Order: sequence, then C-alpha cells, then structure tokens
Amino acid sequence: MRLALGVEYDGSGFSGWQRLSAAGSREPDGSLQTALEIALSKVADARIDTVCAGRTDAGVHGQCQVVHFDTDARRDPRGWVLGATASLPPTMAVRWCVPVSDEFSARFSARGRRYRYRILNRTVRPGLERQYLGWERMPLDAGAMHQAAQALTGERDFSAFRSVQCQAAHARRNLHEIAVHREGEQVVVEVQANAFLHHMVRNIVGSLLVVGRSEQPREWIAELLEKRDRTIAGPTAPAAGLLFIGPRYPRQWGLPQEVCGDETTS
Amino acid sequence: MRLALGVEYDGSGFSGWQRLSAAGSREPDGSLQTALEIALSKVADARIDTVCAGRTDAGVHGQCQVVHFDTDARRDPRGWVLGATASLPPTMAVRWCVPVSDEFSARFSARGRRYRYRILNRTVRPGLERQYLGWERMPLDAGAMHQAAQALTGERDFSAFRSVQCQAAHARRNLHEIAVHREGEQVVVEVQANAFLHHMVRNIVGSLLVVGRSEQPREWIAELLEKRDRTIAGPTAPAAGLLFIGPRYPRQWGLPQEVCGDETTS
Repeated sequence: MRLALGVEYDGSGFSGWQRLSAAGSREPDGSLQTALEIALSKVADARIDTVCAGRTDAGVHGQCQVVHFDTDARRDPRGWVLGATASLPPTMAVRWCVPVSDEFSARFSARGRRYRYRILNRTVRPGLERQYLGWERMPLDAGAMHQAAQALTGERDFSAFRSVQCQAAHARRNLHEIAVHREGEQVVVEVQANAFLHHMVRNIVGSLLVVGRSEQPREWIAELLEKRDRTIAGPTAPAAGLLFIGPRYPRQWGLPQEVCGDETTS
Repeated sequence: MRLALGVEYDGSGFSGWQRLSAAGSREPDGSLQTALEIALSKVADARIDTVCAGRTDAGVHGQCQVVHFDTDARRDPRGWVLGATASLPPTMAVRWCVPVSDEFSARFSARGRRYRYRILNRTVRPGLERQYLGWERMPLDAGAMHQAAQALTGERDFSAFRSVQCQAAHARRNLHEIAVHREGEQVVVEVQANAFLHHMVRNIVGSLLVVGRSEQPREWIAELLEKRDRTIAGPTAPAAGLLFIGPRYPRQWGLPQEVCGDETTS
C-alpha cells in the first residue's frame, strides 16, 4: 500500500532534507528525511523509506513537503499523522496522510514546486522571526526586482543560477511564475517552476537583490540568464529566508487542495 | 537628554521583560530589560536605566516595545540603534531611536497597548513557527469567539482575567477593541486596551477558546466578567502565541508612525 504525507518543518536545526546515513538506519543523522523515516518506522514497526517532492537545503523550511512511501502496515490516516508526529522532533509535524495509487510518485508526479523567500529590508538586522528571514540593509526597489525577474519565466537554461555542486543532468527548467512585492518592511519573492536546480531560488534572489539595490539595471537578470555563467551572477542568498511552500500535483491523485492544481499559477 | 527606542524581540529564550538582578548590574540575568540596558550602557559608556511601555512575560514576543532613558552621552540616533543592536543577543534588535521631551514617559504617556495572539487550529501540533503560536486541536468557531469578546469592550473590572500574582492597585481597565478572525489554519485575536493586568490577554484568550470549542455559550464571557472570579474562567493560554504589537502615544511626542495615534483603534 502506498501513502502520501504532507510534512511541515522548521529547517533551522537540520542538515537539510536528504538522508546522510545508510538507508534504514534508525539513528538520527541531522537530516529531516531520517527524522521522518525513524518516526514512520516506529508507527509501522518496520523499515520505511520515503521519496520526497523537493530536497531542501540546510536551514530551509517546509510548509508542505510531500513524501510517499510503501508499507504493509495497516493504520488509518489519522494513526499515521498523530503517531508519526508524536515521534518527530518538535520542529517537524505531519499535516496529513492520504492513501494513493501505486502510480503516484511524490517526486515524479509533481508538475510544479513553489517557494517563498522573505527579506527584511531595513537598516537593522532582524530580532523577531530571524530564523525565517533574509536581511538587506540597503533600500530595495521591489518594483524593479519584479520587472527584472520576468525575464526568467518560461523554459530556460538556468546555468547562471545553479550551484557548482548541482548534480542535475541539464540546466533547463520551466519557470511558471515569479513575483516580487513589498509587505511593509519585507520584500517577498514567490516563485514556481516545474523543478529547481541546486541553490536556484537562493541564487535568483541574490541576483535580484543586486537589481533591487540599483547596482545593476533591470536588464541585468536577462543578461545573466543569457550568459549562463554562475561566476558573474549575484551571491547565494542565505537559507533562512527560504520556505518550500510545496509541490503541485494534478487533481487526479486526490491529494489535499493545498498541493493540487496542474495550472501553472496557484 | 531623554531618548525613546523601539525594540523588537523573540521572547522565547528570556525570563520576560523585567530585570531580575539589581539595577545597574552588567551581568545578563535572562531578562530582556537587562540585555537592553547592558547594550545601551556599552554605547553610552555609563550606566543606563530604562522604563518600558509594557512588561511582557517569559516567552512573550515584542514587535515594538518602547522604552525611554536619560543620558548625558551624545550619540546620533543611528549610533544608538546600530551600536546597541550590535551588543544585543541575536533575538533582540533596536528598530529606531528618537530624542524626546523630558515630559515623555514610555510608560505613562502611552494611551493604549496592542497585542496579537495567534492560535494554530488543527489536529496536529505546530512544527513551523512553533515558538510564535498557541495551538488548539478542536475546531474553533472564530465568529462565536469574536461575538463573545465584544462583551469585554469599554471600561470594566477585569478581575476574572487577572492572575493571582497581579500587583495592580485595581482591576479596572479600558478595553478599546478586541477582534477575532480566522486566517486559514490560524485563529487570530487582536486586542487593545489602555493597559493590561498580569496575564490578562492570555486569560481572555483561554476563556475565548472555551467558547470557540462550543463548551460554553457566547454569553459566558459576559458572565465571567460580571462575576469577577478568576477561578471559574478558562485556563491561561500559553505565552508563545502572544505578541506585544506595541504601545500607542499621542502624536505630540513625535514618535514613529507605528506607535502613534491616540484614537482607540489603529
């Protein structure tokens, strides 16, 4: 039997999503995946291996990560949700559990992934919510950032925004939507693509900040994309500001509304 | 010379606002006040004592606490803001500094204090933002909570919502406004009064939760108020969900917009 879970986490104290120890190990290794698999294995009383929609980096948060796993254990969805959450670290929780077809894959069935990056834009560093915020002390022109970012939409080669450690076979991704707006002291970047390269959101945000500070014109983002050269783009924005809102799946899989919709915008 | 500061903090790791050690001590004692006074004393190179608008409890957060202090040290406002913030723990920051008249008191000039309480309302405990949320697993009727809360507005005796440790001379306070609304999975309570008794917001929220769960009718809040008996009201809601938005001052003092306005609603 295959099950899908929605998982929420504060990534501050973790090494990132991906398991670091050998598969099946029941010892915590600092990763979110291992913490989840330990908790699920306790509920199942058997080893559980999971596949996720998006492997987030150290310090990046998740509002609705989705995973699937196969098990012979018979528990009702509520039993998986409450049982697993009871064994998870306090900064992780299972939001929901849904039985799914064996054809469903949290990774391969996803048509989109959505992220939000929040930047506190003021002279003084954050005190409140500091684990959830990037910070820029120079005044940002959110309108210029939004306009510059529109050059990134559509199917493109994102080599300019890909980390040197990125192991993807190629750098082409389809960026569905990117929007930058101001909310009081914060500048918020929302972005959705079919999938992302390693550090892609944080590298895009780092370059948009250069435009926001008026150190480069709006056209600079289009130039970076064109040149496909990571070394001339802006620095990688810090992990803390980044939240994985969640993946998007076609409605056919019967998942909760928050991860449904195969349209390009949510 | 008298200065006013706006201070932001995550109260999670602190014993509360109020200094626990002897005045003037330069050793951290776990309180926000002492942490701030140590930082300000470094900038001034002399002892600084502060007076605040609202002494928050352990675990309660502040978006814009206001303090005033007197000093002979001559620094420009930017020097106070950046110098003090550099010496503060990472979960505290000074937002602004404004020179004020010697007649101004952060405590006695305030005409209102505003708080927000956020409750995550779902079966599963919070993972993300857990240090900023209360939690209620039973479904809440936010509309019923809002209606019930309207009985609290105006000048009233709040003995029913006052902790046994409360040292105020009397229990009469003028509650300007209280509103309860739902934002997705969260129920948010916003409340402003001229001043609050010890644990008053958390005790009001604890009783509103009883109504929200439909364990008591809407009229119960009015009855509690009338009976002035703390022992029959709901339990004290946890500190984590509570945020001190800040005080409100008449415009004459020339403070930043976010703490201005002597009208009863903001």
